[in-house]
Amino acid sequence: MLTAIILAGGESSRLRPLGDKSLQRFMGQSLLMRHMQIVQEAGVREMVIVTSPRNDAAVRADCAAVAGDPAVRFVVQPEPLGMGDAAARALAAIAPDAPVYLTQAHDLLDPAFHRAMLAQAQAQPDTLLLAAKHAEAYFPGGYLIPAGTPPSTDQQPFAVRGIVEKPGAANVPSHWMTLVAHIIPRAGDLAAALAEAEAGDPGDRYERALAALMTSRPTLALPHRAPSAALKYPWHMLDIMEVLLHGLSAPQIHPSVQVAEGASIRGNAIVAEGVRLFPGAAILGPAYVGPGTILGNNALVRESMTGAHCIIGYSTEVARSWLGDDVWFHTNYVGDSVIDANVSFGSGTVTGNLRLDEGIIKVRVKGERLATGRNKLGQIIGSGTRVGINASLMPGVVIGRNAFVGPGIILNDDVPDGRRVTVRQELVWGENTIQRRPEDRDAFRSKLG
Amino acid sequence: MLTAIILAGGESSRLRPLGDKSLQRFMGQSLLMRHMQIVQEAGVREMVIVTSPRNDAAVRADCAAVAGDPAVRFVVQPEPLGMGDAAARALAAIAPDAPVYLTQAHDLLDPAFHRAMLAQAQAQPDTLLLAAKHAEAYFPGGYLIPAGTPPSTDQQPFAVRGIVEKPGAANVPSHWMTLVAHIIPRAGDLAAALAEAEAGDPGDRYERALAALMTSRPTLALPHRAPSAALKYPWHMLDIMEVLLHGLSAPQIHPSVQVAEGASIRGNAIVAEGVRLFPGAAILGPAYVGPGTILGNNALVRESMTGAHCIIGYSTEVARSWLGDDVWFHTNYVGDSVIDANVSFGSGTVTGNLRLDEGIIKVRVKGERLATGRNKLGQIIGSGTRVGINASLMPGVVIGRNAFVGPGIILNDDVPDGRRVTVRQELVWGENTIQRRPEDRDAFRSKLG
Amino acid sequence: MLTAIILAGGESSRLRPLGDKSLQRFMGQSLLMRHMQIVQEAGVREMVIVTSPRNDAAVRADCAAVAGDPAVRFVVQPEPLGMGDAAARALAAIAPDAPVYLTQAHDLLDPAFHRAMLAQAQAQPDTLLLAAKHAEAYFPGGYLIPAGTPPSTDQQPFAVRGIVEKPGAANVPSHWMTLVAHIIPRAGDLAAALAEAEAGDPGDRYERALAALMTSRPTLALPHRAPSAALKYPWHMLDIMEVLLHGLSAPQIHPSVQVAEGASIRGNAIVAEGVRLFPGAAILGPAYVGPGTILGNNALVRESMTGAHCIIGYSTEVARSWLGDDVWFHTNYVGDSVIDANVSFGSGTVTGNLRLDEGIIKVRVKGERLATGRNKLGQIIGSGTRVGINASLMPGVVIGRNAFVGPGIILNDDVPDGRRVTVRQELVWGENTIQRRPEDRDAFRSKLG
Repeated sequence: MLTAIILAGGESSRLRPLGDKSLQRFMGQSLLMRHMQIVQEAGVREMVIVTSPRNDAAVRADCAAVAGDPAVRFVVQPEPLGMGDAAARALAAIAPDAPVYLTQAHDLLDPAFHRAMLAQAQAQPDTLLLAAKHAEAYFPGGYLIPAGTPPSTDQQPFAVRGIVEKPGAANVPSHWMTLVAHIIPRAGDLAAALAEAEAGDPGDRYERALAALMTSRPTLALPHRAPSAALKYPWHMLDIMEVLLHGLSAPQIHPSVQVAEGASIRGNAIVAEGVRLFPGAAILGPAYVGPGTILGNNALVRESMTGAHCIIGYSTEVARSWLGDDVWFHTNYVGDSVIDANVSFGSGTVTGNLRLDEGIIKVRVKGERLATGRNKLGQIIGSGTRVGINASLMPGVVIGRNAFVGPGIILNDDVPDGRRVTVRQELVWGENTIQRRPEDRDAFRSKLG
Repeated sequence: MLTAIILAGGESSRLRPLGDKSLQRFMGQSLLMRHMQIVQEAGVREMVIVTSPRNDAAVRADCAAVAGDPAVRFVVQPEPLGMGDAAARALAAIAPDAPVYLTQAHDLLDPAFHRAMLAQAQAQPDTLLLAAKHAEAYFPGGYLIPAGTPPSTDQQPFAVRGIVEKPGAANVPSHWMTLVAHIIPRAGDLAAALAEAEAGDPGDRYERALAALMTSRPTLALPHRAPSAALKYPWHMLDIMEVLLHGLSAPQIHPSVQVAEGASIRGNAIVAEGVRLFPGAAILGPAYVGPGTILGNNALVRESMTGAHCIIGYSTEVARSWLGDDVWFHTNYVGDSVIDANVSFGSGTVTGNLRLDEGIIKVRVKGERLATGRNKLGQIIGSGTRVGINASLMPGVVIGRNAFVGPGIILNDDVPDGRRVTVRQELVWGENTIQRRPEDRDAFRSKLG
Repeated sequence: MLTAIILAGGESSRLRPLGDKSLQRFMGQSLLMRHMQIVQEAGVREMVIVTSPRNDAAVRADCAAVAGDPAVRFVVQPEPLGMGDAAARALAAIAPDAPVYLTQAHDLLDPAFHRAMLAQAQAQPDTLLLAAKHAEAYFPGGYLIPAGTPPSTDQQPFAVRGIVEKPGAANVPSHWMTLVAHIIPRAGDLAAALAEAEAGDPGDRYERALAALMTSRPTLALPHRAPSAALKYPWHMLDIMEVLLHGLSAPQIHPSVQVAEGASIRGNAIVAEGVRLFPGAAILGPAYVGPGTILGNNALVRESMTGAHCIIGYSTEVARSWLGDDVWFHTNYVGDSVIDANVSFGSGTVTGNLRLDEGIIKVRVKGERLATGRNKLGQIIGSGTRVGINASLMPGVVIGRNAFVGPGIILNDDVPDGRRVTVRQELVWGENTIQRRPEDRDAFRSKLG
């Protein structure tokens, strides 16, 4: 019986100030829940989930909510020693003869692709199967060496004879990279190869083991051509959101939703239980609006996801953004931003999301400024943070958890967790020598249209 | 014949920058006019109104507009020597045998309660009658000493045997305080008691006289259980507004009101003559919108009162606020604020109304910072003041009359009458090395939803 | 055959940062195109257009688009030596016996007035005809000396016997000034008079030649009483816009225009091909909205003109303003402003358009601060400029081309072409000692209307 190994440990340190990668929620589900459900619907009931000491309890709680009663075992990886170590620990809990399907919870692949992988494994049970993605631009990862001419447009698997880790843009053996969705015919073979590869850098132990397996097994790559996304950096929340939103094919409006006169829901929008739209409010799909969320008068949510119980207040636009639960806005523009739970903005606060030069926006991750590939990107904001009124938040700024950003600020700097930043203005005091009388206004009154 | 003594003098100095307490207007009427009308409708035609030299002319002008032709006499209190002095001067104009009903214009009691007091007085003409209110929390005032067990839930009067002024929270004789609505069977008795009490602190002369009367007269307290409010500090304008708004039981929309397509009036709203709502504008009751006021496109007024001829301009929200006449807004958020006549805000200016810690907001009154009991409170702004564009006004700030607050300011400080405050920014000049061409925009155009 | 001389040269230096006077576009047409069309419809087919070396190519390109195939010749004036020099060069290309109609492209006169001038010329072919305008206030220009009593209210021409250039307010011979719309019976006469006047100040050479002609020819002044406007300073763009908008007599909505539910077009609005109005958007005529322009949710355009392909984004009001092509707004208030092509504003940026004292707004032109005659005036902004988010632009400020104005600025100063100005704020960093939990919000939730 095929067993899925689902890697859900790791530190998620590059995702800060957001939390655990696998537990990030989209449309009411964590990535892990979604992944388990997809794998299960593709026919897999046995699952071994690798957790970390840090997230083990949360992962178990999250899995408890998955329907369909899959047979789940948990393996804690005590230290973050990489994918090779994680896989080895999972394999120790699986019979050596069983085939395994190794995946990551924070990789969002097409459900049909998982089904195709499993069908292929049934058809050719002795073949090592690797998911492959055509890389438009160079990205540091594992590149496949095709055995013959690789396919360019169709959905057929192609034979590969090796894998090169991070070869550099000039030396790629093909434009096909591997995604972490691998079917190994015998668990014991991979366990042995990982044991062999234990000496050496833990960072590529898994890839070295895989390369060794490929010398003794026929190997096929199965192209993943539907949109996919993986969660590593916080702005990838928007990538995952986009894949999910553009996958919607019809609106789903809960019967309890209240839409006031003059309010509207258009496009493929999922609008959850208890959502209320006040007069003039609009949801423009694709979008997901979480349960109990309120859109005040004239508010607009488009190409976005909100969590539960958000308040999208009067005259606020949320565009292409992901919001956690209990986020509160009031007269704001929120564009291309990732805003975690329990954050509020004062009235008039705006997320800048476009550089003057319309160039690629950079974000600081663990001390290093990384190009995000996006020329529209707002802010990443951790949970529990408050922003005052009329603040101007600059593109790519990261604001930590439980922080406070004062009114009227022009925020170019990142704000660490638990910090407070305000503006000191130089005020000039004097007499107000001009005093207007009500009569003076009458001349202006006639100019009103 | 019972005569009402209406105290309408005093300095109203704690109400600054607003004007005279008794003359503050709600829904087109001053508190004094409203009070006179209520007392008259309860059956009282004889009234003695105590004024101050400062407000005597204005009070007389105001009273002239009261319908029903009550028999009104005016008594000027030359110096602000307190309630005892005011009452003594009023009593000098009343026959000693007449019963009197002593009240204050700036106390908003339930009309039915006034009727109940007068009915009780007819039933027991020899009894001293005091209005009583159950104090949820300690407030410095006069506490009643019940003769027996005080009632806790019903509407029945209960016997009292004394009164203690400001006993301190630990020493209250009951949780019943007295409100200034007292029926004294013989004017002459109170005049004599006040004469007796003249020596001593003028600040509690009235209470000492009342206590003396209670030793010789049977005294009943009549509980006031409907919502009530009194006007002492400027934020009490919101208390009075709330009582009046929540007392509305049906919408009243003048036939001349113009409601454009897509505009709406909902809830118990009084919308006066000549009000115009532009497309997308909304009034959400309970609310009062004064005559000639205009709501621009998409403007929203809710749980608020506006004066006459206000302009609630394009995309402006006014929530839980009281506005005088001729107030002009344009793209603003105005929440939980008291804004007197002839004030205007530039576009983008916002009233902060919530502290970071969501704690109780304090306001400076006569040099002392007082807790308002409110965790949502915007600003108090005197008449004739102008605020520039994109200003950020912090919770609890008081801006005086005829002041000017400059654009882009983060205003944490109070602004005295007639002062001007602006911001001096440090500007950094350089070359703009990036020049965009119209063609560059085409890539972005496709991203518009 | 009468030939029109159309003066379209000059430096337009006082119009900076806008471009050439004659080529400014209103409702899809340059002033020159409009003028050529009006003159042609009044019966003139022969035209001599005077250009400058700077604008010659652009003027020729512009003229190529004029329908009706007029017979146009171009004369380049090599140096900006004034109207006398320009006219002399044009006359050199015209037969001496032909009558000529001398006009300026950037003067917006009533089409019916041009027809009346030409009809008058046919009725009295030997008479010199001058357009006349009644000056309400003194303006430096050419004042007419009536031969008898000048008419005060009717449309009849009146005889004049001379012209005085800039006489000063105390010395005007009448309140009638001449507009540049002059019919000279014989081209050769004006050419000769201009040759005679060549010695002397080139600045009034034309007026001196005209005065000389008047001594030998009967001269009539024809009053222009319809609204007119001339383009000299950049704020005159608004004058011309107003004349054109108030001349609209019916709405013209292209069949391709998309008006979402809850959006509206009212009044005399011209809405061009491909314009889209999102839900809640409104156009309030008189207005012109250029082809391909988008009005986002709840946007409002009133008494304004937009160019082609503008984005009037979410919750933006454009009032009494002229916009070039490709102007992008998002949550802005734009009032009484002139904004050239390819300019964008960040969200929350506001055009201040009213001084504190509601006085006349001044604008700096070539180093001198000039009173504009307007008490409502926003900014003049050159093409290619970007303004960040939450900027506050003060009344009468001029921002050059390809400039950058940073976020959060309070802009009181003009910005030259190609400059960048940003704000340096003093930030105060500390610990955020207050951390709110989601539970704390529940108390506030109930306060939402």
